[in-house]
Amino acid sequence: MTNAQQAATQQTEQQAINKQWRLKQRPIGEPNADTWEYTETVVPEIADGQVLIKNEYISIDPAMRGWLNDAKSYIKPVQIGDVMRAGTVGQVIASKLDGFAAGDYVCGNEGVQSYAVSEGQGLYKIDADLAPLPHYLGALGMSGMTGYFGLLNTGMPKAGETVVVSGAAGAVGSLVGQIAKIKGCRVVGIAGGGEKCQFLVDELGFDAAVDYKNGNVKKDLREACPEGVDVFFDNVGGDILDDVLTQINRKARIVICGAISQYNNTTPVKGPANYLSLLVNRARMEGIVVFDNVKEYPIAMQDIAGWIQSGELKVKNHVVTGIETFPETLMMLFNGENFGKLVLKVEA
Amino acid sequence: MTNAQQAATQQTEQQAINKQWRLKQRPIGEPNADTWEYTETVVPEIADGQVLIKNEYISIDPAMRGWLNDAKSYIKPVQIGDVMRAGTVGQVIASKLDGFAAGDYVCGNEGVQSYAVSEGQGLYKIDADLAPLPHYLGALGMSGMTGYFGLLNTGMPKAGETVVVSGAAGAVGSLVGQIAKIKGCRVVGIAGGGEKCQFLVDELGFDAAVDYKNGNVKKDLREACPEGVDVFFDNVGGDILDDVLTQINRKARIVICGAISQYNNTTPVKGPANYLSLLVNRARMEGIVVFDNVKEYPIAMQDIAGWIQSGELKVKNHVVTGIETFPETLMMLFNGENFGKLVLKVEA
Repeated sequence: MTNAQQAATQQTEQQAINKQWRLKQRPIGEPNADTWEYTETVVPEIADGQVLIKNEYISIDPAMRGWLNDAKSYIKPVQIGDVMRAGTVGQVIASKLDGFAAGDYVCGNEGVQSYAVSEGQGLYKIDADLAPLPHYLGALGMSGMTGYFGLLNTGMPKAGETVVVSGAAGAVGSLVGQIAKIKGCRVVGIAGGGEKCQFLVDELGFDAAVDYKNGNVKKDLREACPEGVDVFFDNVGGDILDDVLTQINRKARIVICGAISQYNNTTPVKGPANYLSLLVNRARMEGIVVFDNVKEYPIAMQDIAGWIQSGELKVKNHVVTGIETFPETLMMLFNGENFGKLVLKVEA
Repeated sequence: MTNAQQAATQQTEQQAINKQWRLKQRPIGEPNADTWEYTETVVPEIADGQVLIKNEYISIDPAMRGWLNDAKSYIKPVQIGDVMRAGTVGQVIASKLDGFAAGDYVCGNEGVQSYAVSEGQGLYKIDADLAPLPHYLGALGMSGMTGYFGLLNTGMPKAGETVVVSGAAGAVGSLVGQIAKIKGCRVVGIAGGGEKCQFLVDELGFDAAVDYKNGNVKKDLREACPEGVDVFFDNVGGDILDDVLTQINRKARIVICGAISQYNNTTPVKGPANYLSLLVNRARMEGIVVFDNVKEYPIAMQDIAGWIQSGELKVKNHVVTGIETFPETLMMLFNGENFGKLVLKVEA
């Protein structure tokens, strides 16, 4: 694209409308209509050192709920009036920033909006020919990095051990289980509903699945893990964490990745009543935040891309279309309605 | 002692009465009058391969409550009708077992009784001239080993870090805090009542103490730990664990040694509602059982004995006299009435 063409494109885009979802009010419990404000602004002109990005896919993640709380955490809360924070993949429309050119596909944290102006912070180029764009938000993005490092560095599974993962049909869980299989473990997934459970076993190669919506988790887990649980990768918290705690082995590792069952509580979080199982079993419960591994992301991306290519790892994305649906799409996570990595396609 | 003398002594002891406390009924909630049965039997004659021990001190430990529950744990529950399990220090009265002779002082798990016949399992000789006998149940016994390995191997404190310990005026807590001081840490103890708190600071050299009975633990802890908490050694669980969880630093280590506030619950254990602080802070909560370190006990005993000798470590034993008082003495632990390592002196 010539400079003249680029200028022309930018001219057009400047007249385009930027659709944005902003935080209007911090939710108590579930986010609802009062939480969000939909705004439309004109796409601004970029200054030197900036790029203009047209977002194509927006990552919808459980962690978003935490970013809405005005509390000290691993990252600053989203401020009232700000565009909602979100991981994104999109295309550079215009660039006055070295290293980026119009036409480049980029990954970043550009928020729930159809266009974004960036100064390059957290922005990196991706190869759109190598994998479908949503993969860069899922298996090759934050979900993949979270599952890879959480399982391998903190869960430290050894071949032959039993690994259990909750939220197993979700973005992180489905990768954790498959990586554990690749590492030679017996893998059991906990998910909601027969369809998801069947998918885990039939499509992703899990050894067994426990349906928390139709059955007795403790009993079904005991059958699925005849030799107990060595690693538990927890995305959900609540009763499921307590049920798994009753079945851990000596020196078990519990990776606390999330607690989606508790994020919308209006009452205090349900702490794990069975935490003294850690004592009896000399076991460990440890929290993870993916950003700590940022320097090692390339290693993980290479491994995961290789496993996708070899067919050892399957990726399931759940794409919802239309940025207008953001508030409802987010709620799918908390209602267990997503099946695989949930992404919002900005436009049809 | 000649064989003739030994025989004579044994003759006398055989006519002596063995006072014993047996488990009569598993308690629901607090142990009470229905839990225990007091029996008196004649001290038996020993066979080949056995020793007869006259117990002098009996260790009273929070762990005893757990041994009464008919549940899978790190050790088999005490059976109904059995003499209550307990650590003991006593003197060999007669021996037909190689390696032990009448007059030897020995440590073992000989139970809540005034005499015991042992085949040597878990029995080891101690030097009664080197330290007062109750020390062998406390600083140089299970409490010492628990504090030493739990703090150093699992808490892994580094010089300059802040270490908080609950149950700080108890057998394990008082040692943990002092060992952390020796290792160059800032040490804050949580204990009940002004007398205990003053003792921690004035006598044991803690940097600060938080009185959970008179004050606001969260607020007082924040003042006492201006740089946050790097290591928390928890003996009590419940609200105190939750309060400390709000103030841990990144990569903090929480050692779960016990949860005395929860042992007599008739409702489910209070799980730590703030456990997601582990996630935010990439922190770890890990359980310990002292028996795992049995091969390294000699190292710990040598270190602790050295620190006692040099005056760097002070030992406080809380001695109650009369085996008849066992049921009430045990309850002192759960009522926070002990001040230092609680031991029962069998006879006045």
